[in-house]
Amino acid sequence: MTTPLITLLSDFGLKDPYAAEMKAVISTISPASRIIDITHSVEKFNIKMGAFLLASASRYFPKGTIHVAVVDPGVGTRRSPILIETDNAYYIGPDNGVLMLAAQAEGIKHVYKITNKKIMLPKMSYTFHGRDVFAPAAAHLANGVKPHDFGPELNRYVVPRFAKVSFGANKLYGEVLHIDDFGNIITNITKKNLDKIRAEPKETLNIKLKNAVMNLKFCAAYGDVSTIHHLVLIDSHDFLEIATNQGNAAKKLRARVGQSVIVSKQR
Amino acid sequence: MTTPLITLLSDFGLKDPYAAEMKAVISTISPASRIIDITHSVEKFNIKMGAFLLASASRYFPKGTIHVAVVDPGVGTRRSPILIETDNAYYIGPDNGVLMLAAQAEGIKHVYKITNKKIMLPKMSYTFHGRDVFAPAAAHLANGVKPHDFGPELNRYVVPRFAKVSFGANKLYGEVLHIDDFGNIITNITKKNLDKIRAEPKETLNIKLKNAVMNLKFCAAYGDVSTIHHLVLIDSHDFLEIATNQGNAAKKLRARVGQSVIVSKQR
Amino acid sequence: MTTPLITLLSDFGLKDPYAAEMKAVISTISPASRIIDITHSVEKFNIKMGAFLLASASRYFPKGTIHVAVVDPGVGTRRSPILIETDNAYYIGPDNGVLMLAAQAEGIKHVYKITNKKIMLPKMSYTFHGRDVFAPAAAHLANGVKPHDFGPELNRYVVPRFAKVSFGANKLYGEVLHIDDFGNIITNITKKNLDKIRAEPKETLNIKLKNAVMNLKFCAAYGDVSTIHHLVLIDSHDFLEIATNQGNAAKKLRARVGQSVIVSKQR
Repeated sequence: MTTPLITLLSDFGLKDPYAAEMKAVISTISPASRIIDITHSVEKFNIKMGAFLLASASRYFPKGTIHVAVVDPGVGTRRSPILIETDNAYYIGPDNGVLMLAAQAEGIKHVYKITNKKIMLPKMSYTFHGRDVFAPAAAHLANGVKPHDFGPELNRYVVPRFAKVSFGANKLYGEVLHIDDFGNIITNITKKNLDKIRAEPKETLNIKLKNAVMNLKFCAAYGDVSTIHHLVLIDSHDFLEIATNQGNAAKKLRARVGQSVIVSKQR
Repeated sequence: MTTPLITLLSDFGLKDPYAAEMKAVISTISPASRIIDITHSVEKFNIKMGAFLLASASRYFPKGTIHVAVVDPGVGTRRSPILIETDNAYYIGPDNGVLMLAAQAEGIKHVYKITNKKIMLPKMSYTFHGRDVFAPAAAHLANGVKPHDFGPELNRYVVPRFAKVSFGANKLYGEVLHIDDFGNIITNITKKNLDKIRAEPKETLNIKLKNAVMNLKFCAAYGDVSTIHHLVLIDSHDFLEIATNQGNAAKKLRARVGQSVIVSKQR
Repeated sequence: MTTPLITLLSDFGLKDPYAAEMKAVISTISPASRIIDITHSVEKFNIKMGAFLLASASRYFPKGTIHVAVVDPGVGTRRSPILIETDNAYYIGPDNGVLMLAAQAEGIKHVYKITNKKIMLPKMSYTFHGRDVFAPAAAHLANGVKPHDFGPELNRYVVPRFAKVSFGANKLYGEVLHIDDFGNIITNITKKNLDKIRAEPKETLNIKLKNAVMNLKFCAAYGDVSTIHHLVLIDSHDFLEIATNQGNAAKKLRARVGQSVIVSKQR
């Protein structure tokens, strides 16, 4: 039998002991479980960013991993705590969409509302379900409690709306999905979308951002252009990325999450 | 037999390899031990903040956990390295108060001065006892060395003085204990203190901070008021907290650790 | 048999899921391996800083540890992925010098170019070899794949050039190697170098930085001078360090990595 693996993602930051308290609860209930942080630096209350980061990382974890994601502005209110079973993994967190992008990509089998008090801490706060509900739920699941013992199955749940890429007049219309710590500008335009405009490697693409319009080389690697030059490439999660070789593209191009991106072939 | 669990708390930050060197030393001496970070982002040299964060988190860890806390402005001077045995856990660190809030809450059984050279690294620096004294001490304790083998028992040790809540004319006088990464203003006023003024859930309380006087609803959860509105509630560690639903209360109310807080019922 | 230990060092930061994806890949291929972060906060693309931090920490890890370091501005270009076997440990990362300071200190036995596709992820990106090449390589090595199965042995590899300390007219000429999170100014001048000018503990040394010239006491511990006073000492990695007792020396003395440092005895 393999050791159960539990991942944590939150907007708690690393200054406070909140993430550690979740680990403490898990270690108490399920001492054999291993815990890996995905990140605790999701922008506060930014459910979409949490959903995007969880979906990026979760696909690399082994089958059967239990993912706990806590970006939870509605903690203590009527939003439900849920457990999702997919073909590949388990997802635990609030029913506000943060789990859905990852879960849908893997194929949702069941969604349960977590109502069973036996898998929560005896004394429950209204402000920290990460520690009092989600962490103990993950630990009990790792210990072998069956998903259908967590509570009733749900047929309706919150699905976050992410912008869709549209196509017209040989142009792709998308938006900035994420700016990573390097300043790389990650868009919602996929490799597959780019086929619509027949973009080929090494071609020049015209990129229109809110604060910059540029012709950029469609590269394979950052080092395909000189240092401090901009480029576009398909990033390691198959999204179109606007980057600067050894520089911070978002800062230089004043790009922000949510801004529109228009991509076409250079005429 | 369960795997020994060692936690780390420090003001080292995460940029430097200092926390990793402590883990390296522990892994060398006690390969079976598991290590969990509480936080390494205590404000530099802020012993009280370290004590508060350690006491918040330690109660959630399993019985027998070994906690190492290194906020240690006096490293290499005459302050003693100590090991505290409580009814529930072990605490290792400098004798400057950082361990005491957590240890006292659990009931101190013995305090030992760490003098046994066999449980320190052979080559010892004057500037990094976290790596050279505290980490190896924790690892040897995890391996089964008995607390009384660490050195002589101490009867006097440093206890940090935290502000106490006072009561008069139907008002509670406390102070800001901590501001968390969300900007929540955590005071030293407990749920029990609030009984003195007979504060009931859903009532309005008058809150006087240094830079703001407000009537705020005494809520159960953040979502009990509209977005960006202020509220008070009992936080997940049983302290009175002044917060903003999905906002940063400390920034908006210009609150800082150490400022006074006066709470009364709205007239 | 002991559990294999894998360390990670990178310039990825902790906001994005990149470090977690490396851990996911390792956990999938080698579930028994333990993973310890050295740091993910190396300054972006700063190979020298990565090399310095890796060399500082790696010596404290147990024999046989597998160190993965990814500061990799040339990812996806012709720089080779390499595996180094030393007398004590294994180092995996790009052939750009980031591994060399640590590896040379331990004695290099073999350097292999990683070319074996079987130890990489099936689908490989051009932008994230940390996840697609280095993490799986570390996991397979932990599982027992032999170093010579990773690819052909290399006889030439990149060695980073670090400034050397020079001596003349009773003065030591060095430079600032690192500024840690406390603001301690760590120079490349070693304890051994100081013998040249016969610096003795408790003596006063003349320190010339770019923006400050001072006579400072050569101390053993920070607390040997009053709070907020400057001092010099031998740090926990045997380098000469300019520090402020409970203060931030680099900020006060406006010191930066790469600036020159001249040390002599006070006349």
